[in-house]
Amino acid sequence: MTTKIEKWDIFELNLEGPKTGNPFLEVDLTATFKYKHRTVEVAGFYDGEGVYKIRFMPDKEGEWTYETDSNREKLNGKKGSFACVKAENNNQGPVRVDNKYHFAYAEGTPFYQIGTTCYVWNHQGDELEEQTLETLKEAPFNKLRMCVFPKRYDFNQNEPEYYPFAGSLEGDWDFERFNPEFFQHLEKRIKQLRDIGVQTDLILFHPYDDEKWGFSRMDEKTDDRYLEYVVTRLAPYRNIWWSMANEYDLLENKSMADWDRFFRIVQENDPYQHLRSIHNCRGFYDHGKPWVTHCSIQRHETGKADEWRQKYGKPVVIDECGYEGNIHHGWGNITAKEMVHRFWAGFSNGGYVGHGETYVHPEDILWWSKGGVLHGESSPRLDFLKEIMKDMGQVKPSDVSWDNSIENDRGNYLAYLGNCTQSINYYIDLPEENDYEIEVIDTWDMTVEKQEGTYSGRSKVDLPGKPYIAIKATRI
Amino acid sequence: MTTKIEKWDIFELNLEGPKTGNPFLEVDLTATFKYKHRTVEVAGFYDGEGVYKIRFMPDKEGEWTYETDSNREKLNGKKGSFACVKAENNNQGPVRVDNKYHFAYAEGTPFYQIGTTCYVWNHQGDELEEQTLETLKEAPFNKLRMCVFPKRYDFNQNEPEYYPFAGSLEGDWDFERFNPEFFQHLEKRIKQLRDIGVQTDLILFHPYDDEKWGFSRMDEKTDDRYLEYVVTRLAPYRNIWWSMANEYDLLENKSMADWDRFFRIVQENDPYQHLRSIHNCRGFYDHGKPWVTHCSIQRHETGKADEWRQKYGKPVVIDECGYEGNIHHGWGNITAKEMVHRFWAGFSNGGYVGHGETYVHPEDILWWSKGGVLHGESSPRLDFLKEIMKDMGQVKPSDVSWDNSIENDRGNYLAYLGNCTQSINYYIDLPEENDYEIEVIDTWDMTVEKQEGTYSGRSKVDLPGKPYIAIKATRI
Repeated sequence: MTTKIEKWDIFELNLEGPKTGNPFLEVDLTATFKYKHRTVEVAGFYDGEGVYKIRFMPDKEGEWTYETDSNREKLNGKKGSFACVKAENNNQGPVRVDNKYHFAYAEGTPFYQIGTTCYVWNHQGDELEEQTLETLKEAPFNKLRMCVFPKRYDFNQNEPEYYPFAGSLEGDWDFERFNPEFFQHLEKRIKQLRDIGVQTDLILFHPYDDEKWGFSRMDEKTDDRYLEYVVTRLAPYRNIWWSMANEYDLLENKSMADWDRFFRIVQENDPYQHLRSIHNCRGFYDHGKPWVTHCSIQRHETGKADEWRQKYGKPVVIDECGYEGNIHHGWGNITAKEMVHRFWAGFSNGGYVGHGETYVHPEDILWWSKGGVLHGESSPRLDFLKEIMKDMGQVKPSDVSWDNSIENDRGNYLAYLGNCTQSINYYIDLPEENDYEIEVIDTWDMTVEKQEGTYSGRSKVDLPGKPYIAIKATRI
Repeated sequence: MTTKIEKWDIFELNLEGPKTGNPFLEVDLTATFKYKHRTVEVAGFYDGEGVYKIRFMPDKEGEWTYETDSNREKLNGKKGSFACVKAENNNQGPVRVDNKYHFAYAEGTPFYQIGTTCYVWNHQGDELEEQTLETLKEAPFNKLRMCVFPKRYDFNQNEPEYYPFAGSLEGDWDFERFNPEFFQHLEKRIKQLRDIGVQTDLILFHPYDDEKWGFSRMDEKTDDRYLEYVVTRLAPYRNIWWSMANEYDLLENKSMADWDRFFRIVQENDPYQHLRSIHNCRGFYDHGKPWVTHCSIQRHETGKADEWRQKYGKPVVIDECGYEGNIHHGWGNITAKEMVHRFWAGFSNGGYVGHGETYVHPEDILWWSKGGVLHGESSPRLDFLKEIMKDMGQVKPSDVSWDNSIENDRGNYLAYLGNCTQSINYYIDLPEENDYEIEVIDTWDMTVEKQEGTYSGRSKVDLPGKPYIAIKATRI
C-alpha cells in the first residue's frame, strides 16, 4: 500500500546505519525527492542509536519518489515513493511573505500575526510544558518565540532537562556530538505547536548563557555545524520561522560577519525557505539584507511600524514591545492597557506586534520565559483585535485622519486614536465619491458601536470621550 | 518729596508733546538714566493725545537721575530723579537663566516654570478677562503664553475689542500709526499678571491671522517698527518674556533671516534683556543661536528634554505638549492623566513643561485660547508637582534608575516610572557611601509615602503596582 502524506506534512524515512566512530561527522547522507521532472535534495541526520533519518515536507499533491545517497553502503541507494495527498483540517502550509508587507499561509489564507514569547518553555519539564500548550490552545497567539538553548537570567535559575550536546554539565561538552534526546524533545514541542496552529519563531542563539553552558560562545565550526543540524532536522516542520537570535547585539563573541554567515547557512540548508529574521536589543541588524524576509524588532514605539515598512520594504513584526507585568525591570512592567495599546498602535501603522507577560510569581513561573498560565488582562483584547485584523485584511498606512490610520484594498479605513485621547468627536477624511458606514470601536472594552446614517467626505464622528478608541469606515 | 520706586517696578515720565504730523514716525525721544557712574539709555514712545512716555525699570536701590533727549524742544532736556527702594511683597524681579539649564528671579530665588496658555485672553472683553485673572490667582501656573495680535481659528471667530493699528477693519490699516488704546489695554493685562505673580510669555507673531487683519503679512519696515514699539513700551514690565512667535514655521511670509532680525531688534531695544525664545510647529528654530536664551518647544515627547538640553546647552521649556481636552483635533484631546504625565516626564528629564486646556464649551470659551475657568483635572496635580520641584531644586538628569531620573546638588534623587508601568518593586542605584530616606510618590493621587528604614547602594523599593509613580531618595 502506498504511504500517504498530507501536503506540508512530513514524510520520514528511518534507516539503520553505523553506530561507530562519530556518525555526526563521518556519515554523509542525502536523498533526492522527485515529482515529475522536479527534484529536491534534502539532507539526512543522525538521531542516535544507529538510526538515520531523512525528512521531507512535500508541497505538491501527487506521487513523489526518492533515492538516498551516502558514503555508507547501508544508507546508500535506498529508493521508494509516497503519495502526497490533500492537506486537511488546520494544515494550511508554511507561512510566507505576502503582498510585500504581510504574511500568508502557502495555501493562500492571510496570516495575521499575534505573537507571544515563552522563550524557554521547552526546558521546564513535562508538567509545565503541557500546561503551556493547554494555555496556548485557548489563547489568541498564533506565533511563539522560543529558544533552542536554555536560558540563565533573573527568574531563570533552573537547569534544563536536556542539553544539546553530548557530555555533561560538570565535564566538558563534546561539541562534535549532538544529544538526540534534546532534539527529539524540541521537535516534539514544535510539532505540538504546529498541531494547535501556532507558528514557532525558533531562536537559534541568545545571550542569556550560563558559564557552565557556553552555548553563546562556541567556535565558528561548532556554530555552523549546530545550525546545519538544527535546520536539517526542523525545516520539515511547516510552522517553523528562523530567528537567528534574540538580542543579537548582546552576544559579545559574535561579529556582524558571523550573523551574515548564519543567515546564509540557514538559507542554504532549508529546502523550504522558511521565514528568516533576527531580533535586536539596541541597534537593528540591517533588515534590508537580501536573506532577511521580514523585520523582527525590539522597540516600545510600535507606532513607528510605518517608518520601518518604508525603510526596509518588508513586513514589520515588533516582536518585543515590553511585557505586561509587574516585575522590577523597566521592560517588564507595563499595564495590560499599554500592551493592548501597543498592539493597536502597530496595527494602525501597518505592522504586527508581539505580546509577552511578566507577572511576579512565587515559583518564578513567568509566562514570558517559562510559559504556564496567563495572568494578565491583555490577551482577550488581542483576540478581539485579531477579529478586526481579519476583517480589515492586509492594510497599508493611510492619511484619512490626524492619528494612526490604515486602509485596505476594498477601500475601507480604520483610525486609532491612541492611549491618551478623549475627544468627544473627531473628523475622518473619507473619499467624497463613496458612502461609508462607521463603527466606533472601544479597543479595551471590546465593543463595536455602529453609528447611525451613512458618511462621505470629511465626516464628523461622535465619540465616547475616552482613550483606546478606533473608528472604522466600511464602504457601502 | 522724592518719588520712590521699588526696585524692578516702573518709573514713568509723562510729557506733553506735539500731536500734529505723525508723532510715531517723526518724534525722537530717549532718556538717559544714571546711577552713580552707570548710565542706561531708554527710548520713549508716543501714547496718543499728545502724551509721550518714558518708562524705566531700575535694578539697583539708590538715587537715579535722568535727562531726556529729543528732536522736539518740549520733550528735550527734561531732568529729574527718583529713589529706587527695596522690592516688597512678591516683587522678585525679572526671571533670568540660572545655572545654565534653569531659571531664577533677579532677586535670587529659583523659578520653577509651570506654564499654561491663554493665547488671546486679552482680546475677549473685560468680563471674561477679569474671570481669567481670578482663575489664574488660584491656579498653579506661573507663566502664561499670550499673543499681542488677535487670533482667527477654530473656536476663535470673534473680533477683538481693540486693534493694534489706526484705521479700521473695513478700510485699510494705517500701519504707520499705532492704536494707543490697544497697547494700554495690553499692558494693563500684563501688569495684572505681574501683580499675581505670572510671567507673561508674550508672543510677538503668530500664523492664525484673518484675511482682514493681515498682522502676519506686514512688510519688513512695519514688522520692525512694531517690534521696536512693543519692546519699548513693555520691556519695563519685569514679568515679560519675549516669544518671537508661536509656530514660527507656519508664517508663510517670514524667512529665517526675518526671525534672526526680529531677535536682534528685540535684543537691541530691550534695556533689561528679558528672556527670548521662539516656538515651533514642525522643525525647530536653532536654539543654539546666541540671542536665544532658552528653548521653547512644541513636542509631545517631553521625555526628550534631556536630549534637547544636551543639544542646545540652555534651559528647555516644552511650551506645548498637547492640550488636556476633548476637541476633535489630535493636539487638543489628551486626558488629564496624560497631561500630568507629560509634565513629570519633562521634569524627570531636566526640563520644564507647559499646560493648556481645550474642553468643548457651548460658547467656544476654551482656556487654551480665551481663558475663563479651568474644567480639567490636571491643574491640582501640577500644583502638587510644583511643590516637589521646589523641594528638589535645580536638577540634572541622572542614571540612578532604568527610567527617567534626576538628581540635585544636595545628592538627592528622583526617578519617575511613567504612565504605563505597574511594577510592585523596583531598584534604584543609590551611592553606597551615603544613607537615604525613600518616599514613594503617586503623582496622580498626590500622595507621598515615606518608606520604612534607610537605603544605600542598589536598593529595592516596594511599589503599589500602578502607573504614575515616582521614587524620591533624600540623603540623610
